[in-house]
Parts: sequence; structure tokens; C-alpha cells
Amino acid sequence: MSRTVLLLPGDGIGPEIVAEAEKILHAINKKFDLKLAFESGLVGGAALDETDNPLPDDTLEKARKADAILLGAVGGPKWDSLPMAKRPEKGLLGLRSNLELFANLRPAVLYPQLASASSLKPEVVSGLDIMIVRELTGGIYFGQPRGVRELENGERQGYNTYAYTESEIRRIGRVAFEAAQQRGKKLCSVDKANVLEVTVLWREIMNDLKREYPDVALSHMYVDNAAMQLVRAPKQFDVIVTGNMFGDILSDEAAMLTGSIGMLPSASLNSEKQGMYEPCHGSAPDIAGKGIANPLATIISAAMMLRYSLDEEKAAAAIEAAVNNVLDQGLRTADIMSEGCTRVSTREMGDAVLAAL
Amino acid sequence: MSRTVLLLPGDGIGPEIVAEAEKILHAINKKFDLKLAFESGLVGGAALDETDNPLPDDTLEKARKADAILLGAVGGPKWDSLPMAKRPEKGLLGLRSNLELFANLRPAVLYPQLASASSLKPEVVSGLDIMIVRELTGGIYFGQPRGVRELENGERQGYNTYAYTESEIRRIGRVAFEAAQQRGKKLCSVDKANVLEVTVLWREIMNDLKREYPDVALSHMYVDNAAMQLVRAPKQFDVIVTGNMFGDILSDEAAMLTGSIGMLPSASLNSEKQGMYEPCHGSAPDIAGKGIANPLATIISAAMMLRYSLDEEKAAAAIEAAVNNVLDQGLRTADIMSEGCTRVSTREMGDAVLAAL
Ligand SMILES: CC(C)[C@H](C(=O)O)[C@@H](O)C(=O)O
Ligand SMILES: CC(C)[C@H](C(=O)O)[C@@H](O)C(=O)O
Repeated sequence: MSRTVLLLPGDGIGPEIVAEAEKILHAINKKFDLKLAFESGLVGGAALDETDNPLPDDTLEKARKADAILLGAVGGPKWDSLPMAKRPEKGLLGLRSNLELFANLRPAVLYPQLASASSLKPEVVSGLDIMIVRELTGGIYFGQPRGVRELENGERQGYNTYAYTESEIRRIGRVAFEAAQQRGKKLCSVDKANVLEVTVLWREIMNDLKREYPDVALSHMYVDNAAMQLVRAPKQFDVIVTGNMFGDILSDEAAMLTGSIGMLPSASLNSEKQGMYEPCHGSAPDIAGKGIANPLATIISAAMMLRYSLDEEKAAAAIEAAVNNVLDQGLRTADIMSEGCTRVSTREMGDAVLAAL
Repeated sequence: MSRTVLLLPGDGIGPEIVAEAEKILHAINKKFDLKLAFESGLVGGAALDETDNPLPDDTLEKARKADAILLGAVGGPKWDSLPMAKRPEKGLLGLRSNLELFANLRPAVLYPQLASASSLKPEVVSGLDIMIVRELTGGIYFGQPRGVRELENGERQGYNTYAYTESEIRRIGRVAFEAAQQRGKKLCSVDKANVLEVTVLWREIMNDLKREYPDVALSHMYVDNAAMQLVRAPKQFDVIVTGNMFGDILSDEAAMLTGSIGMLPSASLNSEKQGMYEPCHGSAPDIAGKGIANPLATIISAAMMLRYSLDEEKAAAAIEAAVNNVLDQGLRTADIMSEGCTRVSTREMGDAVLAAL
């Protein structure tokens, strides 16, 4: 039985970091006899440049057939002034929605070796380990109607729709409760139920689900308070579940608490556990092509892929151990560099992980 | 010419903290011969309990006539399971929208005396001074249609509408550009223009306005990145302008960077500079009635009221100087207490400010 991994380097630093992850995947494929086959495709700005479409049919077809996808990043100033339908981001959003990758898992974990990189006091973040479960194919990202219309008085109005159905809420809720069961058994659902009707329904369904997970402690928090509590005392959280837009904001905030967003992976899964894996950081066009980007978030995303979509726990753990090993050796790319460590390039970092395997 | 200030204590710690601010206002009224007349009214849960309406007609009428309003806080678990229309928050939202208080100014300032209260490293936050300008009467808070509907397949869907017209964006934009002119001349507009059409219009109008304010440097940032940058390097910001929902989240996050949200005031203004002033913190039902809440944010809000709505700069500065003085004396309520300082109650703190006047 051969399984297919689709590599989508994308834009900016995407190609550089995916190349390093690819090296690791090839090695691990051999070492553990995983029988993985690799394909690659175009997405985002790279696809726009070649095909005038941020998500070419060919890429979508390959994605549907793949067992898992490893994506670098999309977007950059080059395409920023294009109309909404022709933006690199549409490639990413199209993959998420076409493959129904509704469950976005974003861990915010502090690597002890990198504790000093955080802008927070060590006692506030040491040992930090939060899992954010973000709904990824609904909410205001995909709600209809949307657009810009002309009002009777002649002025324009922009509008979007924030909507969730019971079943959309229930399926992401289950993922979050199950994640909590496997971790610290604490789930915090984030909403704005004092203002937004859609999140009143969200809260109701979460309370409903709670009955099926008696071992998980469920709490609710308004999104403004959650944004504060993440700064004040992030270690109070175990698993956080929230909608697409709030999840976008809070997961980036949580990631930055660690100070080393260049280390954080993410997984986007559908109900068949088919998944797309990407680093949390973006395409970083300012450092693209310089060979200094940190490939570790992508390499750790590849490990997450082996674990969640390909059921290869041992291979995943081997990659994670190798990453820990290079950190212990004091090797650092520019973004996580600190005194007394050795600064390495993107490729040198990839090679070091390879050697540590 | 007598001017009227309406006091709305509200819920939770509201009555305790507004009582202290009232003492200060009475004293300053005499000292500077301000000819202020005071009224008071019910709002939020307190109003619900008495009149079954979170914003009684009597309160709304007094509010319309007042030159300025000082509000404590609204809400608490007692009223949390009421239907949306009967919630304390509707009292607050009703005041904002009926008086068209579209411009919410939320400073996030670090008091040097309280620097150690922050969960961030001192070098990251020392000297922090950000002004967040949040649109307060539009966006998803007030967008129509909204509610919960039954779909054809029988399941329910919750929905809200995120909408802004050009003129709504333009008027908040002007407030922000003008605030930037009076400060560090840097304005960062926060949106999600890579996903949401309504914020594409937002960005376009901000770019338009920029031409009228050649001395202000305008930048744009996606909201997820802004949530990160506030944690990573908050001092990069001078003035931030954003919509109602993003402003709710980011202003609370920014406030918490200081570690002393019990110190932060806010102003909500309409185009006649009529304003409602409130502390940034909420009603804190867990400590209500214990006499330990920090009244300083409300007292500083009263100073802001004198400055922005009543044009009494000297009186405002006198209050602010008195607050600085009590901090220098080492007096601290529980929330900002630290070693070597003297812990005081809500009333003792109010009395100390009074004495320092
Ligand atoms: C690139 C953008 C469309 C995307 C999002 O908003 O979801 C990104 O910020 C993310 O979080 O993956
Ligand atoms: C109480 C609530 C409705 C309110 C808001 O969301 O605007 C509060 O969080 C605030 O920021 O003033």
C-alpha cells in the first residue's frame, strides 16, 4: 500500500523551507520503510504567476487524491493589489474548503531551549503547552452573502456574514473535546455570546456536547477576555476551541507568546483524517530567497503529518527527537538566535536535523 | 452655564468605583468652579432588576441631555442566561448606538510605578503608550440581519452581519488620523483585507483619507498579525484604528500588556464630543461588594471626561497628577499590589486621591 504526500511550496520562504522538510521526509521514508510517494503542485502566488489561478485544477485534483499535504506558505506584496478572487490566499482557502479541512489544530508550545526568545517573563510562559482548535471551513471566512454594494444614498457598504450551523459547531466541538481528553482534560470555548447570536448557538452546542464528555471540564470565555488572559496567564489553558476568525487571531497571539513562531506547526484535518500541514508563520517575503528562514516549523509539521494523517507515530517521534537534538546542540536560525548559540542557514538547519535522524 | 454629568454606576464593582470617582468630581467641581451638575441613573443589570429593561427610557433621556456620562460597568452571572434582548450588555450597547458614540478611545499606557505588574519583560513594555481607536456603533455588533434561523434540513444556523459604510469608516478614520497628529504621527489600520470584503473597503477609505493627513504615516496590518505584534513588540505602535469587533479584542489585549488594567480609562465620543467614559475593566462580579476594587481607572476616566467633553484641561491634569501622587506614595489596591507597597481599600484609594488633589 503506497500513500501519497503532496508538497505545495507556495510563496515567499515556502520553497526554501519545504525543500528542507522534503529532505527529512525522504530520509524517514527510507529509514522506516513508509512507502510514501511524493508529488508536488502549485498554489498561491506561484500558481497565479503560472496559471492565473491561485488554485489550479491540477493542484486541487492532486490534493483530493493525496493522503496528506505539506504546504509552505502563500501570499506576498507582489499580489496584494489583485482583486479578492485572484489572491494567493484564495488558493489556501480553496484547499481548506474543497477538502473540508474543518479542524485546524495549532499547538502553542514553548521549547525549553528557546525560553528566552519570549517577550513574556519566563515564569509566565515556562512549560507553556496550549492546543488551539480552530474551525476552518465556516464562520465569517466563508459566509454568504458577502461583497460591496451600493446603498440608496449612493455610498458603498462592505459586508460579510458570520454564520455557523449546529452540525458545523458540533463536529469541531467533538474534535476539541477529544483533544482535551488526550491532554489535560480542560476545554475552554471562546465566543462573544454577550453580543453575537451566532456564538450564542455556538455556546449552546458546546454545552450540549459536554454531556458526552463527562471527563472534560468545559469553560466558556468571551473573546476579548481570552485575548487578555493569554497575555496575563496563558498556562491556565489546555485546549481552546473557537470559530474561524477568533481562532485566526487567538492562535497567532498564542503562538507569539512562545517568542519562536518559527517553531510552530499546524494541522488542518477533515473527517477522514486527511490533512494539510503547514507552519504557523507566513510567507515572510522580506527574507525570501536569502536562505535564512527557519525550516523547523515545516519539519515539525511534517512530523505532525506522519502522526495524524499517516499513522506513523514512530517516524513522527523520530523527527521530533532530531529537532530537539539540534536545538540542544545550540544550532539556531536567525529568528531564534541568542547569545552563545551557533547561527545556521535554512539548509544547514535541515542538514543538521537530517544528521540527527 | 451649568453642565450636567450623568453617573451610571451599573453592576458588580460599578457602584463602588463610581462612588469614589464621584467624590473626586465633587471636589474638583468646587476647586475649579466648574459649575457641574450631577445626575444619576440605572443601566445594565441594576436597571433590569428594577425596571425589566437594561436601558430604561428615563436613563436614555438623561443621557441624551447630559454633557458627559461616567459609567461603571455592566453585566454579571446573575443575568447571563437571559435572552439577548434582556441582557445588561444591551444597556451599554443601546447607549453607544442611541447617542452615536462611534469613537472609542482606549489608551494602553504603562505607569512606570506599576511596571512590574506586566507579564511581559520590562524592556518590552517600559514606556508603552498606545492609543487604540475603535469604531463603536457599527460593524458586526450592530449589523443586520442577525439571529438564529432554521434551515431546510431542520437544523439551526446562527448568523450575524459584519458591515461598514464608507461614511462610517471615514468618520472613525478622521478621529484616528487626528489623534495620530497630536501624538507620534503614526497610524496603523488593522483589518483582514485578505479575506473579508468589508475590510477591503475599510482599507481603501483609510488610504483615501491619508491624502488629507500628509504628516501622518499610515500603515496597514492584518488583525492576526496585529495580535502577534502587540505581544512581540508593542512599542512599534502609536495609534491603532480598527472596527468594533477587532477593536474589542485588540484593546483588551493591549490593556493587559500593562498588567494593570485596573488603571485604564476609555472614552466613547460622538461628533459633538458628547462622551461616555468608563474604565476598561469590567464589572468583576467576583470581587463586587468587598471594597477591594481599584477605583483609579474610573477616576482617570473622569479626568478624560473633563478633558475631552468638558474642555477642562486643568481640572483633568489635576486629577491625573493626584493619581500619580498616590502611586508614588506606594498606595496600591489588591490588583496592583506588589512588595514594599501599602495595600489600601477602594475607599482608602479614593480618599488618598482626594487628599492629593
Ligand atoms: C493567509 C490567511 C488567509 C490565513 C487565515 O486567515 O486563515 C492565515 O492567516 C492563517 O491563519 O492560516
Ligand atoms: C460588555 C461588552 C458588550 C463590551 C463590548 O464587547 O463592547 C465590552 O467588552 C467592552 O469592550 O466595552
